[in-house]
Amino acid sequence: MISEVELIKRIRRFPSPPSPPDLLKGIGDDCAVFRPGGADTLSLITTDTLVEGVHFDLSWHPPQLLGQKAAAVNLSDIAAMGGIPRFALLSMAIPTTMAVSNVDAVLEGFLHALTHAGVSLIGGDTVRSDQGLTLSVTVIGEVESGQVLYRSGAKAGDQIWVSGWLGQAAAGLALCRQGQAERKALYPALLDAHLAPKPETALGRALAQSGLVTAMIDMSDGLASDLAHLCEESGLGALVRAESLPISGDCREASQALGLVPEGLAISGGEDFSLLFTAPPAARNAIAGLAGQAVGGQLHLIGEMIEGQGVLLSGDGPSRHIEFQGFDHFSGDRP
Amino acid sequence: MISEVELIKRIRRFPSPPSPPDLLKGIGDDCAVFRPGGADTLSLITTDTLVEGVHFDLSWHPPQLLGQKAAAVNLSDIAAMGGIPRFALLSMAIPTTMAVSNVDAVLEGFLHALTHAGVSLIGGDTVRSDQGLTLSVTVIGEVESGQVLYRSGAKAGDQIWVSGWLGQAAAGLALCRQGQAERKALYPALLDAHLAPKPETALGRALAQSGLVTAMIDMSDGLASDLAHLCEESGLGALVRAESLPISGDCREASQALGLVPEGLAISGGEDFSLLFTAPPAARNAIAGLAGQAVGGQLHLIGEMIEGQGVLLSGDGPSRHIEFQGFDHFSGDRP
Repeated sequence: MISEVELIKRIRRFPSPPSPPDLLKGIGDDCAVFRPGGADTLSLITTDTLVEGVHFDLSWHPPQLLGQKAAAVNLSDIAAMGGIPRFALLSMAIPTTMAVSNVDAVLEGFLHALTHAGVSLIGGDTVRSDQGLTLSVTVIGEVESGQVLYRSGAKAGDQIWVSGWLGQAAAGLALCRQGQAERKALYPALLDAHLAPKPETALGRALAQSGLVTAMIDMSDGLASDLAHLCEESGLGALVRAESLPISGDCREASQALGLVPEGLAISGGEDFSLLFTAPPAARNAIAGLAGQAVGGQLHLIGEMIEGQGVLLSGDGPSRHIEFQGFDHFSGDRP
Repeated sequence: MISEVELIKRIRRFPSPPSPPDLLKGIGDDCAVFRPGGADTLSLITTDTLVEGVHFDLSWHPPQLLGQKAAAVNLSDIAAMGGIPRFALLSMAIPTTMAVSNVDAVLEGFLHALTHAGVSLIGGDTVRSDQGLTLSVTVIGEVESGQVLYRSGAKAGDQIWVSGWLGQAAAGLALCRQGQAERKALYPALLDAHLAPKPETALGRALAQSGLVTAMIDMSDGLASDLAHLCEESGLGALVRAESLPISGDCREASQALGLVPEGLAISGGEDFSLLFTAPPAARNAIAGLAGQAVGGQLHLIGEMIEGQGVLLSGDGPSRHIEFQGFDHFSGDRP
């Protein structure tokens, strides 16, 4: 089965018009970036599609939370560029068998998440689906041109940070799949991480405005994959210390009950939608300080950028390469 | 089954943040319109989703032409605002069973149409589908703020124009559904209208720049529906003369062979993607002149805007209301 990376390579092989001067970034970052004629801010744009049976399972996903999540995964991409989300479009392919109350609930959750982020729904498309529900969302944002954060700006020696815990969403997904109601009830934070992730909008803005950060990406595919993207775009490698992986007590406990390895979830589990970013060591205290401020949440230092390529994990034994173990929808290892 | 109009009403009932001052038009036109901070042009954005089994049938739709069409239906929305298309995003939900050569052909057709329009592909998403192929496209355009054309600007007494023939795409669809190869071969223009419609990009720009046009919409749902949208947004009614409906000889001939009424296709057949616009009678010669210039194509005068509401068709007998006979995907009367 063809992978997303392979598809993008194929797209790049087709003849295309030369990149126009007002396009700052096309395919290959969390958002595309362009400068509308005469504008003093840059425009950001991103799109993400959620397909029933591939990205979500309505047998356990409350429709309102699904609507929230469809917004969140796109808002997270704007956050990863340091931007302010402004406008959204929603395309829904709706099964003829879907109850109107469930359509309403999806809309309500989606609009709730937009309103919370100060974003206006300005368009979209609703079509009939003979099969499952598909939600395709586009979000437009803006960012000052001096503050936009790409995946490509990391320098060797920069420290690598993540916001929040790793592997939470993957543990939540495993709990949902396993289906034991009593066990699920024990770990509301893990379920939330899977069902209704929160985009790091305020943190992304604060980091962009701090001027301290050199590169940033959001954690959609898992640490191994997302850090590998950042490394590739920055032309560097990364060294991650296994003992620094931020894994919550809940995640460890639930993993044990489910027969999973929490470090595996932290490395390869996707959809945490936290931010992964790099900054010079001299910025360490200032960045740690950001976490204590209005931004909330925790920032964790997990390693550093190194010369070379690929993502190395150092632990008790010899360091090992972990890149490309993250989730690819095409590999089909998800609901 | 819930209709798109009903869904939009439901969306409007949910609490939402006040419309920001830089948003000029949200839901309810061919594109949303906003002015990025400090920009001297307006940004246009539109999205349309094509679902296998609802909007297209791969048993007769060559994948390359399908890719072209997915671009065209969005480029047509930019044309209907008088804008210049600039950037596109493509989300593909790809069945695991789809041959890579067919995925390539869809991409090739899509990129060909973009390149022809001077548009850059700047992002998207590729996900696995357990069911059919879904193509969700977003196109961003720009337009000078004095030249943007909404659905809402028509005045009573304005004449109503359409570009090109009506009912061509519906006749082409009927030929494809009926499936007789010999008959299909007789009507390449009808097949083209269904399989690979051409957006009226140059005409839309010329009309916007002429300063003669008061309102415009693209013909995606059929004359009755699209003119009803323009009437509703302009707070007026419309009178269409049946004898002025531009129906091609091909359409009449194929309709007869298929047992269809060509006037019915012209009124209710969707997806012609021609432009429907209004202009004062004094502009008549100047507009007719535009058709003869670089723009190419034919412009047809079909009626005029009147006080009141609804779309009236005048013919041999008494005038009758024809609005809301156009295609709604949710009514399910298509492949």
